[in-house]
Amino acid sequence: MKLSRAMLATTALFGSLALADAAREVEILRRAHSVPRIAPSENFTGTVRLGSQFRRDAPSRLSGALVSFDAGARTHWHTHPLGQTLIVTAGAGFVQRWGGVREIIRAGDIVWTPPGVKHWHGAGPSEGMSHVALVETRDGESVAWMEKVSDGQYEGR
Amino acid sequence: MKLSRAMLATTALFGSLALADAAREVEILRRAHSVPRIAPSENFTGTVRLGSQFRRDAPSRLSGALVSFDAGARTHWHTHPLGQTLIVTAGAGFVQRWGGVREIIRAGDIVWTPPGVKHWHGAGPSEGMSHVALVETRDGESVAWMEKVSDGQYEGR
Repeated sequence: MKLSRAMLATTALFGSLALADAAREVEILRRAHSVPRIAPSENFTGTVRLGSQFRRDAPSRLSGALVSFDAGARTHWHTHPLGQTLIVTAGAGFVQRWGGVREIIRAGDIVWTPPGVKHWHGAGPSEGMSHVALVETRDGESVAWMEKVSDGQYEGR
Repeated sequence: MKLSRAMLATTALFGSLALADAAREVEILRRAHSVPRIAPSENFTGTVRLGSQFRRDAPSRLSGALVSFDAGARTHWHTHPLGQTLIVTAGAGFVQRWGGVREIIRAGDIVWTPPGVKHWHGAGPSEGMSHVALVETRDGESVAWMEKVSDGQYEGR
């Protein structure tokens, strides 16, 4: 009986240590191991790939992904409760807020859309565009999806 | 007098609108306009450049920068209160937590260091490395700097 209690105590101890250790490890998401998936057509127009997705545990609120748009592809209109940062990594494309003009974005540009601002982003008409997308989660939510960006809106008409 | 009050009211009104509009604008930090600065030698070893720095307003907590390390350059040991995400954008280098081994990181890899974990990162011995560094601020703080990474530590001895 004494031994059994000692074993249980040992198991509990090592269990806790394992959890504590996991929270203290550096984690590396290897590009070589990331298999992109096609973004869902209910929120995107054209071919868009999502890769290297990550979501941090609390107390962090950060999540992100590498998003690659084929020429002409774009998000639907949407908002983010705590805003969104885009870091353009390749190609060129557009970002536009509701009521604003399309702005051209290029590799190396960093885009900030404040909380609650309705907007879309995507590739140029004849060139793909990739960006890292970074959002913070509030109450489990990081995006509210809206209607499609029409061809007229996409073309700036 | 009536006119003067009306003018004041108008100024107050447009002042508020300007503020409200600023919070609703998409902001683009252009790579072409970013002038990198040399990172301070009290926190870094070797030549390190900081560019495209950004810091979001509350309720967001995100801040970040593009950090470029010449071959052999690295941070000092440090921790982040809410952790840190690195997105390697060019070259190859190392990340190491206190008590762990040096891990090689390459363009496209995404590194997570949990809150409070003492670590360093930097370029390889014969190749530069650039990464986007992302942190969240807690009580105005996003990093606690510690001692230099010695040549022996850097070389994995």
